[in-house]
Amino acid sequence: MRLAELSRRSGVSTATIKFYLREGLLPPGHRISSTQADYDEEHLRRLQLVRALIQVGGVSVAGARAVLTAVDDASLDQLSRMGTAVAALPQALPAPAEDDAEAPAAERVAVELQRRLGWRVVPENPAHQALVSALSALLRLGYPCDGEALLPYGELAGRLAEHELALVEQFEAPTTQLEAAVALTVLYEPVLLSLRRLAQAEQASRRLRGDAGAGDGGEAGGAED
Amino acid sequence: MRLAELSRRSGVSTATIKFYLREGLLPPGHRISSTQADYDEEHLRRLQLVRALIQVGGVSVAGARAVLTAVDDASLDQLSRMGTAVAALPQALPAPAEDDAEAPAAERVAVELQRRLGWRVVPENPAHQALVSALSALLRLGYPCDGEALLPYGELAGRLAEHELALVEQFEAPTTQLEAAVALTVLYEPVLLSLRRLAQAEQASRRLRGDAGAGDGGEAGGAED
Repeated sequence: MRLAELSRRSGVSTATIKFYLREGLLPPGHRISSTQADYDEEHLRRLQLVRALIQVGGVSVAGARAVLTAVDDASLDQLSRMGTAVAALPQALPAPAEDDAEAPAAERVAVELQRRLGWRVVPENPAHQALVSALSALLRLGYPCDGEALLPYGELAGRLAEHELALVEQFEAPTTQLEAAVALTVLYEPVLLSLRRLAQAEQASRRLRGDAGAGDGGEAGGAED
Repeated sequence: MRLAELSRRSGVSTATIKFYLREGLLPPGHRISSTQADYDEEHLRRLQLVRALIQVGGVSVAGARAVLTAVDDASLDQLSRMGTAVAALPQALPAPAEDDAEAPAAERVAVELQRRLGWRVVPENPAHQALVSALSALLRLGYPCDGEALLPYGELAGRLAEHELALVEQFEAPTTQLEAAVALTVLYEPVLLSLRRLAQAEQASRRLRGDAGAGDGGEAGGAED
């Protein structure tokens, strides 16, 4: 397809597509004349991923380039490419500051939690560092930060990850799976956070009204008492 | 306690405490002379909440003031105060833009999802609007956005909300419960997001290695196949 059709099908303006091409976020089209290039389904898919990263994930152009470089790095195996690509996404919190007095205790809680969940501990994963920062804030501010408080988050995250890997495996080709893994990590994050807020409102409303089985169905059962 | 002790116990500098006092984020101390004031445990707790909002939640000073105004609004019942305070926190995404062509379809998916979960639909909740924005992005970019993909997120959010309300109910006084509800909404968000990334890495590593029961224990079972 020509640039105009790529723009129409993706909903991204031709000016933005040209910008992504210049920035190396989109591979060049196949030259068909000195002024025209042809784009295929791969370009469309890549364009959708770039939009997900930048518009929903708030990823910078440089950050998106780092993610895509990992996705395309044929020198790595599939697992390393996925790990590197996802690790290049922005984290919920930066790593703990050098002078964070609670960081060593938070690190111990983070390691113990992951061991209880049966997960390998990978301290260099930026998500591990973000977890330590989050736990450090809980400790510093005196909010619950023990196994009883934290384990349900880990268990539910584990179940979610199984579901999410199954979603990713619906995509067949290895590179498409990698692109989907990155896109779904970014795109389902606001789904999860907004559903958490809505579930809290629903639960608070039920409890404060002394109303245990409200709602008009609850067939899924997830929010029932 | 005096300002210096409040600073020592909270880890917040006296300059920052004075700034919060001027901005109305902290109620004035009890005057004991023309130059000195006395602060109590309530001030310490409130100071911790303000730190959670601003430092971890990335809430602006004006945003924090809106949250605290709702927490302190004695004209509202407990449920309304909690709802208003949590609704004043930043959302994962802004409401859909006026010209968002996918918003009506995303709205239908959001309503249907909450109905299946047995939740009351409250379209004016900012989290409902954030959910619609997130679903609109999934639809626009062609990623899975049906009940099969979304229901597990809602079910897990429902279970998390039950756990979180139980954590909040450990705090006894009504105002302390409200403060805890706000603080825990903000502070556990990065815990959840970083655990989700770690769980994804663990699951991807197990699946791609064809290694179903890895880890050194897995007593909690949440991440097992």
